[in-house]
Amino acid sequence: MSCLPSFVPYFRGKKLQFLDCLSIKNDQKRSKTITNENLGKSYTKMNLQELIYWIPAAGVVALLFTFWKTSQVTAADAGTERMQNIAKAIQDGAMAFLKAEYRVLAIFVICVAALLAWSGYENESSDPLVAVSFVVGALCSALAGFLGMRVATKANVRTTNAARESLGKALEIAFSGGAVMGLGVVGLGILGLGGLFAYFGTHFNAFEGGDALTKTLAVITGFSFGASSIALFARVGGGIYTKAADVGADLVGKVEAGIPEDHPLNPATIADNVGDNVGDVAGMGADLFESYVGSIIATMVLGAALVSGSPDFQDFLGGLSPVMLPLVLGAIGIGTSILGTFFVKVREGGDPQRALNIGEFGSSAVMVLASYFVINKLLPETWHVDGIEYTAIGVFWATIIGLAAGLAIGLITEHYTGTGKKPVRSIVEQTVTGSATTIIAGLGVGMISTTFPILVIAASIIGAYELAGLYGIAIAAVGMLSNTGIQLAVDAYGPISDNAGGIAEMAELPAEVRKRTDKLDAVGNTTAAIGKGFAIGSAALTALALFAAFTASYNQTHVEKLAAIDITKPEVMAGLFVGAMLPFLFSALAMNAVGRAAMSMIHEVRRQFRDIPALKKALEVMKRNEGVDSEDWNKEDKGVFDKAIDEAEYGECVSISTQAAIREMVAPGMIAVMTPVAVGFLGGATMLGGLLAGVTVSGVLLALFQSNAGGAWDNAKKMIEEGYEVGGEKLVKGSESHKAAVVGDTVGDPLKDTSGPSLNILLKLMTVVALVIAPML
Amino acid sequence: MSCLPSFVPYFRGKKLQFLDCLSIKNDQKRSKTITNENLGKSYTKMNLQELIYWIPAAGVVALLFTFWKTSQVTAADAGTERMQNIAKAIQDGAMAFLKAEYRVLAIFVICVAALLAWSGYENESSDPLVAVSFVVGALCSALAGFLGMRVATKANVRTTNAARESLGKALEIAFSGGAVMGLGVVGLGILGLGGLFAYFGTHFNAFEGGDALTKTLAVITGFSFGASSIALFARVGGGIYTKAADVGADLVGKVEAGIPEDHPLNPATIADNVGDNVGDVAGMGADLFESYVGSIIATMVLGAALVSGSPDFQDFLGGLSPVMLPLVLGAIGIGTSILGTFFVKVREGGDPQRALNIGEFGSSAVMVLASYFVINKLLPETWHVDGIEYTAIGVFWATIIGLAAGLAIGLITEHYTGTGKKPVRSIVEQTVTGSATTIIAGLGVGMISTTFPILVIAASIIGAYELAGLYGIAIAAVGMLSNTGIQLAVDAYGPISDNAGGIAEMAELPAEVRKRTDKLDAVGNTTAAIGKGFAIGSAALTALALFAAFTASYNQTHVEKLAAIDITKPEVMAGLFVGAMLPFLFSALAMNAVGRAAMSMIHEVRRQFRDIPALKKALEVMKRNEGVDSEDWNKEDKGVFDKAIDEAEYGECVSISTQAAIREMVAPGMIAVMTPVAVGFLGGATMLGGLLAGVTVSGVLLALFQSNAGGAWDNAKKMIEEGYEVGGEKLVKGSESHKAAVVGDTVGDPLKDTSGPSLNILLKLMTVVALVIAPML
Repeated sequence: MSCLPSFVPYFRGKKLQFLDCLSIKNDQKRSKTITNENLGKSYTKMNLQELIYWIPAAGVVALLFTFWKTSQVTAADAGTERMQNIAKAIQDGAMAFLKAEYRVLAIFVICVAALLAWSGYENESSDPLVAVSFVVGALCSALAGFLGMRVATKANVRTTNAARESLGKALEIAFSGGAVMGLGVVGLGILGLGGLFAYFGTHFNAFEGGDALTKTLAVITGFSFGASSIALFARVGGGIYTKAADVGADLVGKVEAGIPEDHPLNPATIADNVGDNVGDVAGMGADLFESYVGSIIATMVLGAALVSGSPDFQDFLGGLSPVMLPLVLGAIGIGTSILGTFFVKVREGGDPQRALNIGEFGSSAVMVLASYFVINKLLPETWHVDGIEYTAIGVFWATIIGLAAGLAIGLITEHYTGTGKKPVRSIVEQTVTGSATTIIAGLGVGMISTTFPILVIAASIIGAYELAGLYGIAIAAVGMLSNTGIQLAVDAYGPISDNAGGIAEMAELPAEVRKRTDKLDAVGNTTAAIGKGFAIGSAALTALALFAAFTASYNQTHVEKLAAIDITKPEVMAGLFVGAMLPFLFSALAMNAVGRAAMSMIHEVRRQFRDIPALKKALEVMKRNEGVDSEDWNKEDKGVFDKAIDEAEYGECVSISTQAAIREMVAPGMIAVMTPVAVGFLGGATMLGGLLAGVTVSGVLLALFQSNAGGAWDNAKKMIEEGYEVGGEKLVKGSESHKAAVVGDTVGDPLKDTSGPSLNILLKLMTVVALVIAPML
Repeated sequence: MSCLPSFVPYFRGKKLQFLDCLSIKNDQKRSKTITNENLGKSYTKMNLQELIYWIPAAGVVALLFTFWKTSQVTAADAGTERMQNIAKAIQDGAMAFLKAEYRVLAIFVICVAALLAWSGYENESSDPLVAVSFVVGALCSALAGFLGMRVATKANVRTTNAARESLGKALEIAFSGGAVMGLGVVGLGILGLGGLFAYFGTHFNAFEGGDALTKTLAVITGFSFGASSIALFARVGGGIYTKAADVGADLVGKVEAGIPEDHPLNPATIADNVGDNVGDVAGMGADLFESYVGSIIATMVLGAALVSGSPDFQDFLGGLSPVMLPLVLGAIGIGTSILGTFFVKVREGGDPQRALNIGEFGSSAVMVLASYFVINKLLPETWHVDGIEYTAIGVFWATIIGLAAGLAIGLITEHYTGTGKKPVRSIVEQTVTGSATTIIAGLGVGMISTTFPILVIAASIIGAYELAGLYGIAIAAVGMLSNTGIQLAVDAYGPISDNAGGIAEMAELPAEVRKRTDKLDAVGNTTAAIGKGFAIGSAALTALALFAAFTASYNQTHVEKLAAIDITKPEVMAGLFVGAMLPFLFSALAMNAVGRAAMSMIHEVRRQFRDIPALKKALEVMKRNEGVDSEDWNKEDKGVFDKAIDEAEYGECVSISTQAAIREMVAPGMIAVMTPVAVGFLGGATMLGGLLAGVTVSGVLLALFQSNAGGAWDNAKKMIEEGYEVGGEKLVKGSESHKAAVVGDTVGDPLKDTSGPSLNILLKLMTVVALVIAPML
């Protein structure tokens, strides 16, 4: 460990005991490895050409696995005709949204691709082929969203049907649906990236290294840009869709008409269930696809910078080992994720959370082991950059730092938003004095919840850098994301179970079915919270990796290097201010969009209750039969009810949400893409650097604040519904406390499901745009 | 203008037409001035020694003016015995708070002074005398708070009494009270700083320039540190006090017991009125005192760096002209502020807003003119630093940029928070669908309101730097703050009128009195909003100036210079993350503190209503006589009422607020002081630089967000109370919409009056701490 940097002057001797102990391990290992070195060299040298093709093949394996899982899901019984009708309405709505969204995105993709091709021709330091990568990236992201959502909208009803039989079967189908999303994302990511690298690498002769490699990687960054663009629109559009439907359905249905959630008489019910799919399945998938791809690309670019600065890699994969490493780790992650899915099983009465944990942590453990061997195999034991010695084991520990940071942020998130934990309890206690104190308490929890995740991120940055330089920061992001396949499977399982519960309600299945799906869903909520923390943490590290790649790429393509992005310079400080402001602007736009879209939904539902006589009559019948099980209604009432369901115009609500989401996603999307371009070309690379730093820092903070405040309010409401006691008094549904908690939950909804998660993408997208335009600045 | 920097590559030729036109003016002037140059030289050279003593003399003039104004206020009639009793209770409460606060602060000041003295002895690059400056700074700030609050608690009741006669007289007294605060702050600031500079300058032989000057300035930074420390505790403590009393009084008094605001039967009423004084008078005063002093110190330090880097100043004030300039501008500002106070007059039926505007803008105009001549007199026409030419006229325009930026941010604030403006109307419209949508709309307004102020700040940074380098950024802050005297007079006038209204209510004076004080108060609200924007803008520029001074001071005291604070370095990025997180943590602590303190207040008021029989009885009497004017009550009821007022334990509520505020201000205060010290010594100067940049950027954004969201909710509530129409329906007090608006207002209260304004201080204080420890790092 001779790589102690100068910025910890006081602790130079003391601080790094932890790191020292790592390097001792390394020393102990050295004698062993040295004997293997020549063997390793010849082995790895031999296999570069093969490896180039094995990587996309791993992507193909993942896709084959998703096809198999999809067929499993499809083969399951979809239940009664009514269930199938409901499911079809949801599926049609979801596909209609995707179609509308992709139509708009196609125009955007074509325009940007044309612009990229044109500037590639015009600008000698760039290449028009970047447009091809861009289009492929956009297509892969869109395809991943499509595949994931198609299976999710099949798995939901089949989960409901399986839940009529047993918990285990229901879990199996819901999780299979999630696994398709998870493996689809990593499969398409690795196939796309690996395929492009193989193709363009051959085209440019990149495997000889040097400038050709730099050029190839510059072209491939387009893939990440394409993925990010789709992700932004999917997250923002999906977020607006789901919250407009949710808030609209709740405010008119629950509050005004007094009918329960997911009730078939509410015309916005289908839109609400569609929203779970487009927001939580497709949106989350696109988000992690972007992080996954972005972290790999950034590591490849920094790997190329490493190779060009040090001769020590020559004998490892033809000198390309640091470039190939993230792809190899990704490919291995596919294997461990697939392995993990086989461990997710539960018996009747068993604990679904435990099943998911075994799958996820088991897979992580295997991944750690595999990384250890692969990194030591692929990288030389030591190398030197600017006189500092780095080690392969240091790179390994950097990936562990990434993995640990992701987990830590997830657990901290769980602490601040989890049911029964102190922060949520403190909100529940404030509900007694009304909605104002509930809101203040939630804002406080959201703000204070940023402290530890930020300290974790800061420590990871320093730790990963000490261990392996800038490359270490990037590889930490890869480490955090290496298990994306199974992580996302668990994430996507949540909304599928949620939907399954909704279908059970709408199809009026027996209470025990809903109980089983609720059990699955409750687990989903905890994992969703952890997944959100994970998404934010990975976004932060990925953005930092991309940021480092941006400066590396700029320096490799410019004669006059970026000496430093110095915050004492006014243009950097100005960039920092403007960058830090953008997440506020972006969040405000997203929130206002939800407000407007929800308003349209409210008007539409009110219109239907007013203008459709059958619906109006059914509402009266319902009120008259309050407390009576629908099985015991008289025949006439049942007829009225069925007629109303036939005549309710669910499709209208679906199309209102769709149109609003599509319309409202354009402005924030444009800001995200245009700002770095404008600042980069008008203000120069250093101002752009300030902008990116500002966006990253403030974006991560606001994302944490909004997601956690929203999550905490959500669970505070749930705690009251479960009957929590404050000062000896049991709070119940319908009490003043509960009303205050509902206000908190409603405020939190757009924060945690629209503006908060969109920020993850904002900061990655802006940095990717910077990376793409870096050679042209 | 040969000083075009390299960071605007695309616009090099085009962009700076505005600046070019300035330099043309400069060229035209050149012929005239050149002939005067030798005259000017000898004139200024001759007067350095005199000037050194004239500056503190200007401070003395300001203080004499405040004594005169105080005697004017004191001489006015304080009204009926009942009014005097109420006023005395408020004054006693306010002084009790100050006493308790200063007792705690004395311990803090002694400890820090001892630490500074010790490290000054230990560390050869520092000096123990910095402890003296620190103590003087703390004393001056505390004295300014004491003087301002003493007169404010005299002016309130005399304003009420004058309002029994006429609007003009009431305005005169309220404004005189404010003027004492305003001129007291600038007077003590200039006297303290100027006096210390004269004293230590002579002591160290600083007037010869060179290292002695650097050392003197390093010692004087302690003054700013002392001022900042008091400011932080005053703002945080005052903010917690005022909101605990306010929320507590409202929730039990208005909501539970159903008695109007400021009603004498509410035991928390006096505490509420005390809160206006300790929060809005003393808190705001300490805040601006800190900005004022900080901007001058920063400019002096950067001026010294300028002098040491360029020989062109030799013939101007013995080479010290850039160091003396901010002091001279401050001294002139005292004159123009005093002048301005004479223009604030209004007749019965006239517009108090217009009177205040004439005073403020008239004074600004004179200041601009005076600055033009002084700057051209004191500075050489051109000078060169690192081959770039700067001009005196450029420095002048930098002060104008500062002034314009302050005004612009104030006006933008007014747009987003003003009654009847679109953003506030949009909140009012959302009140129709309940408190959740009200909150979401307000959060959206708060977030989007950050956009333009940030763009203004970014543009000012770049503009001021282009015109006059880093010195330009600092002098822009001085320009913005040159009118602090009258600005603060207008700010402090607001809470005095507010208090006057409260006293009218409590003393049950005729409705026309309350109407007059309400008219004064309404004006106060608008100016308060502008003042808040001004405070944030000046905090941002001051922090940046101090930040620049920090690097300048570090480089002047270290052999190994800070080459750059490069955000691509991990320790800087980590510092940036942690720094940006601190305002979130700080806000959360402040909000939670308010929550806890309000809870104690609620319990105390409930206890009094339960345990004091006279109070309990009077509440019943009040309910029985609802709608009947208290003049017309029967004698027995009147007796019950008077007995209750005698027995209500107002003092208990005052002491609860006091204790809570003192207790709760310690933790956030310590974080603010300790973090830069810890990061600086453990992480080094570059990490500290990252931390400061993070705190500044995120602090300014969160301050804008919180202040503006809170202000907008406040005025949305007022618009409904004034009967605004939505969709043809007139909203009224007591409607569901009004209830939703009250929730918004209550949420906004701690945001706009506690956590938001505290952030201004946080970012200045942390940067000042960095500046003080810079030589020791």
